[in-house]
Amino acid sequence: MADSPLVQRVKEVHEQARLLATLDAAARNDALEQVACALEEARGEILAANAADCEQAKANQLNPSLYARLELSPSKLAAAIAGVRQVAALPDPLGQRQLHRELDTGLILSRVTCPLGVLGVIFEARPDAVVQIASLAIKSGNGAILKGGQEASRSCQAIMEAIHRGLEKSAVPAGAIALLMRRAEITELLQLDQWVDLIIPRGSNEFVRYIQNNTRIPVLGHADGLCHLYVDAAADLEKAIAITLDAKTQYPAACNAIETLLVHRQIAETFLPKVAAALEKAGVELRGDAIACHLVPMTRASEADWATEYCDLILSIKVVPDLDAALDHIATYGSGHTEAIVTEDAAAAARFLQEVDAAGVFHNCSTRFADGFRYGFGAEVGISTHKLPPRGPVGLEGLVTYKYQLVGNGHIVATYSGASAKPFTHRDLES
Amino acid sequence: MADSPLVQRVKEVHEQARLLATLDAAARNDALEQVACALEEARGEILAANAADCEQAKANQLNPSLYARLELSPSKLAAAIAGVRQVAALPDPLGQRQLHRELDTGLILSRVTCPLGVLGVIFEARPDAVVQIASLAIKSGNGAILKGGQEASRSCQAIMEAIHRGLEKSAVPAGAIALLMRRAEITELLQLDQWVDLIIPRGSNEFVRYIQNNTRIPVLGHADGLCHLYVDAAADLEKAIAITLDAKTQYPAACNAIETLLVHRQIAETFLPKVAAALEKAGVELRGDAIACHLVPMTRASEADWATEYCDLILSIKVVPDLDAALDHIATYGSGHTEAIVTEDAAAAARFLQEVDAAGVFHNCSTRFADGFRYGFGAEVGISTHKLPPRGPVGLEGLVTYKYQLVGNGHIVATYSGASAKPFTHRDLES
Repeated sequence: MADSPLVQRVKEVHEQARLLATLDAAARNDALEQVACALEEARGEILAANAADCEQAKANQLNPSLYARLELSPSKLAAAIAGVRQVAALPDPLGQRQLHRELDTGLILSRVTCPLGVLGVIFEARPDAVVQIASLAIKSGNGAILKGGQEASRSCQAIMEAIHRGLEKSAVPAGAIALLMRRAEITELLQLDQWVDLIIPRGSNEFVRYIQNNTRIPVLGHADGLCHLYVDAAADLEKAIAITLDAKTQYPAACNAIETLLVHRQIAETFLPKVAAALEKAGVELRGDAIACHLVPMTRASEADWATEYCDLILSIKVVPDLDAALDHIATYGSGHTEAIVTEDAAAAARFLQEVDAAGVFHNCSTRFADGFRYGFGAEVGISTHKLPPRGPVGLEGLVTYKYQLVGNGHIVATYSGASAKPFTHRDLES
Repeated sequence: MADSPLVQRVKEVHEQARLLATLDAAARNDALEQVACALEEARGEILAANAADCEQAKANQLNPSLYARLELSPSKLAAAIAGVRQVAALPDPLGQRQLHRELDTGLILSRVTCPLGVLGVIFEARPDAVVQIASLAIKSGNGAILKGGQEASRSCQAIMEAIHRGLEKSAVPAGAIALLMRRAEITELLQLDQWVDLIIPRGSNEFVRYIQNNTRIPVLGHADGLCHLYVDAAADLEKAIAITLDAKTQYPAACNAIETLLVHRQIAETFLPKVAAALEKAGVELRGDAIACHLVPMTRASEADWATEYCDLILSIKVVPDLDAALDHIATYGSGHTEAIVTEDAAAAARFLQEVDAAGVFHNCSTRFADGFRYGFGAEVGISTHKLPPRGPVGLEGLVTYKYQLVGNGHIVATYSGASAKPFTHRDLES
């Protein structure tokens, strides 16, 4: 059977990615500089294409949050281009030796980072994602197949043309980065586990869940961000109020914002009226359990509230008898993203940090710190709530894998087997 | 809807695993010693149960390779018990700090290894796998659900009873390690991605492929091991012959044995008759392409041969015009397990080590070295041919994940946002 047009394209990206993988850091960084220059030269075209997309989106009454992500101002485009140069300035993620060990005289094992192969990136609206993802792919030596939302098609195409013009002046094959234009191709792309090594979805929870449920290719991302803040009996109440406000209101749509506040019974009477006043002043709707409602007038929370990621200025509040009850609640309802405790009790903090099973476990600080840039990764490829690594905010390290290189001088296993087996030395060497 | 009996059991293991995860290395190692002692005390019962399984297997005419794996001699049992103590002696995989960074004064980020949660282990025959897997699970702080083959049910049960007796004398909850007895439970287990974090299959290629195709839980393992040895124009022929023999005949059923020998045209005339004589003397059946058949009388290989993992004393041979053709053949037919080159040409070796995309890329040594024990990991949980880490032979490191712990003193994100944002320090600290 002949390959479909998509399979042909994906195979071509796969082939070109093999070439890209052989280039050194200088060649990949030079390509990023060429891309940045080409994008600068194409600013007019890109902004015009985006204006056309925006006009169409208005006519189609696109929802406001998607529209906000679609619109590309000159400053947003300039920031995206600056981002390309920032990625170029990051340390090379490839060729890093993670292990260096003599197995026996003259038989040396190394574990060295290398590219994954081909990334499949599917996103809604946000044409600047094309710039960011293409940069991260080039930096990490990976090919990439990108599929943006239909509403951003003109913008994405103008950006991709500029990227290709830049790559043509570099050693990186332009064919290693490709843009898909037809929505139907997503379904087919998700089946191509032979050629695509990682899927990165960028969009709403429903969108990510759809991708996760419809592919056997590993998916880097998370569908849910149901984070809790637990205010312990030994909490400093001023810190607790500041952290609650930050974690709920600083950017309520973020996945690392909190949805539920757990409050130790012993301090509830003092703490809840104060925090409720501050939250209500910030426009937050409160939904409490029986005790919370008794202490502060608020809507009664239903069972569904404990399992809901509001992505909005709404907070559910539960009063718990002790730390164990807080841990149990988090184990039941948490999504494994980020969980925080406020306490001055070192033992309680230590138990929380050890026993909560989440990508991020925080003490006396806001859950909103869970972010690749804030962690100092220089880039964020995604945040993963999977148990297996990479977990939590993922930088360039999430786009590379490793291989074992073993170099000998005619060594065979028979020497190290059987009754008179020679022992291995297993001596770690300098890195 | 009420939980099924299996879901109830798996939830119970999940709960007990939460307790196990809080224990320190001394408590987990003590439990392993108790398990080793209990297994020693139960030697008679275990061997008797195994004898009954073997008798039944003979009556059922179980195939010889499964029978060999089923049969538990006193020395095989003693080796399994020694293995428990070896696992206890390994460095603790938990609580390892992989990153330690100040984000700002008093705001400290750590990345620390922690257990995955619950392992699901499904294996054929091999009752000693129960001992090994239970030890690795306890060491790594994970709960485990084990399902052995029906043919080994009495042996597995006797071993599990001894393990539980040992655990009851320790701080590790016996309920964290459970044995399933009914075959139908496998299908259900594979659906429980909410409670089971990693599936480890142990068995034939078909068995592993079945598991991989029937679960959304991550699977640690590989279905295929199609490895190549490429003998370059600049090969030392003595080394090439020794390595070919070792890689094919030292243990032909192993996944890291070679299936195809690629030979540079320039040396084929000298090398092929010599290596063919040595291989045939070792009982290896040869299947060659046109040129190989022209140089040495042998069966003509079909297209299917290049894609076949024989797991037997059969080797396909192809003569290639250059290194590029060898790289292309490996890219097309390799399973990403282990690939090797024999050459004295440093540039050819460097290209091979960089460009071949496989978990192991070897120079002048046998593919048979691809093994967790030979790599010095102290234990091998499996070998993965997935692109994403963990890749290749996986030790205890494959049974742990990590979490980010962030400790502040009332820090909020608002401080680091907006027009007058405070910059992060992002200063790496001593480990």
